[in-house]
Amino acid sequence: MKFIPDFEDVAFAHDLIRTHVHRTPVMTSRSINAITGGNLFFKCENLQRVGAFKFRGACNAVFSLTGDEAAKGVATHSSGNHAAALALAARIREIPAFIVMPVTSPAIKKTAVAGYGGQITYCEPTLQARESTLEMVVRETGATVVHPYDNSFVIAGQGTAVKELIEEAGDFDMLITPVGGGGLLSGTAIAAKYLLPGCRVVAAEPAGADDAFRSFSTGIWVPSENPKTIADGLLTSLGRRNFRIIMDKVDDIVTVSEEMIIGAMRMIWERMKIIIEPSSAVPLAAILEGKIDVSGRKTGIILSGGNLDLGKLPFS
Amino acid sequence: MKFIPDFEDVAFAHDLIRTHVHRTPVMTSRSINAITGGNLFFKCENLQRVGAFKFRGACNAVFSLTGDEAAKGVATHSSGNHAAALALAARIREIPAFIVMPVTSPAIKKTAVAGYGGQITYCEPTLQARESTLEMVVRETGATVVHPYDNSFVIAGQGTAVKELIEEAGDFDMLITPVGGGGLLSGTAIAAKYLLPGCRVVAAEPAGADDAFRSFSTGIWVPSENPKTIADGLLTSLGRRNFRIIMDKVDDIVTVSEEMIIGAMRMIWERMKIIIEPSSAVPLAAILEGKIDVSGRKTGIILSGGNLDLGKLPFS
Repeated sequence: MKFIPDFEDVAFAHDLIRTHVHRTPVMTSRSINAITGGNLFFKCENLQRVGAFKFRGACNAVFSLTGDEAAKGVATHSSGNHAAALALAARIREIPAFIVMPVTSPAIKKTAVAGYGGQITYCEPTLQARESTLEMVVRETGATVVHPYDNSFVIAGQGTAVKELIEEAGDFDMLITPVGGGGLLSGTAIAAKYLLPGCRVVAAEPAGADDAFRSFSTGIWVPSENPKTIADGLLTSLGRRNFRIIMDKVDDIVTVSEEMIIGAMRMIWERMKIIIEPSSAVPLAAILEGKIDVSGRKTGIILSGGNLDLGKLPFS
Repeated sequence: MKFIPDFEDVAFAHDLIRTHVHRTPVMTSRSINAITGGNLFFKCENLQRVGAFKFRGACNAVFSLTGDEAAKGVATHSSGNHAAALALAARIREIPAFIVMPVTSPAIKKTAVAGYGGQITYCEPTLQARESTLEMVVRETGATVVHPYDNSFVIAGQGTAVKELIEEAGDFDMLITPVGGGGLLSGTAIAAKYLLPGCRVVAAEPAGADDAFRSFSTGIWVPSENPKTIADGLLTSLGRRNFRIIMDKVDDIVTVSEEMIIGAMRMIWERMKIIIEPSSAVPLAAILEGKIDVSGRKTGIILSGGNLDLGKLPFS
């Protein structure tokens, strides 16, 4: 696999994972179109298996392993959707998945990973402990590490969501994704700029976790430091290879307030009757906040996932 | 129109309203199948326009009016989904909808009805005040009253949901709906027993509002008295003509606890990532509570709606 994947890799990924992933529906909302003045198409990756687009990339990484590699399993450290996604992909291929999780991970995430047959090793909740524990696990098992976003198979897999969106709904003037580590954004940009060279690709990021915005604006990669946002899928730093792809192919990155993320999430729940996690609401928040102008533009939005704790909702 | 509609009326309704209603998706859930041991198909009327199956019946009633009748508009008293559904159906036909609502109706319901162009007359929150105010409105306007469920056009319209479900997913061994006034249940029974004579049609009702269960068990219609349930769409008494259809065509009615309704609602939110209102959770609650055995039976469930106040959720 190339260091920087291209559309051929996305198309190859799509053929490889097609039988395992859901071809998720594309939804529209008259009322949200009326409110925004746009013509919006939502690709519902919250309805993907594991409840997030992450399953696409994990599946592509797992099914791209050689037989010898596969026999030793896969490994990652993650407290989020990638852990569950990798565990399920591995279970489908009938190989082990070794997941390093901080002991402080929410019970719901631990249960999900264990439920998909992932073998969990707990560690202290620091990046250092996560990385050293993962190293130890890999030394013992020989498993292949699958990074949640800075991995070419993962990036190519994430690009399949927008490929399906374009296949189903046709041309777009603009596509918007949230950005955290940059796996979804870089995969989307690769697929979109190949299929629709004239289409704008824009990302939205919480102002409280704006490392991608700052890196993109200056062209100099900066890490995510003390990020604070309800969009817990977007706390991580931009991956190095994701950053290169984004600098090359993305047209703009904008930031949005926490209030608007919550408002946009509630709007999608109320108007579209679907559950999305806060990270998924960030693109609509950017539109509602006037950071992205959708008037007169056919616009596609990837709803990235639907996993959150229903006992701790931000509505009142 | 006949006093008791038959399948021909359902089929006619479907042709009449087809261009106005959404053909809602049918969803399945591996994890809920694993938990229940069933093979469940959910017809997502929460994704219907207005967020409820009620739009089907209202649409059929409005589009069945003669030109002269239509010119004078339609009227109803309702604090729920029927009011919004009738208002939208009337707006599409470009005729007035006069809606009598208790002053105590939730702001969100008033806003919805007004947003669809319904002309609201407020009244005291008693059945007597609702009926006398409606009479007054009808005397003044000559509008046609469209009862929320004890109306043959409405019943035939509601039957179109299960017709679509069977067209899309094929044969069923069993179909389950919630029951309140009985509009959805009677329409479902008419369509299902015609299309699939061997299919069981079962209804689930909150134990705290069990007039349909008691009426069905004894064969003697009893009203709903002091009903108490979170499933606020199911508080009303069974309609007289709905009762006749149900006695003739429904196989069983079972009751469920409030705890299980909340648990089933949460399960659908978490596992299927869609918003349903408590009334929609009652059939799954009956399965989880062991009141309906779905093992080895292909079972269809109508998810009736998705309208609820996100600021007052029963999760903790």
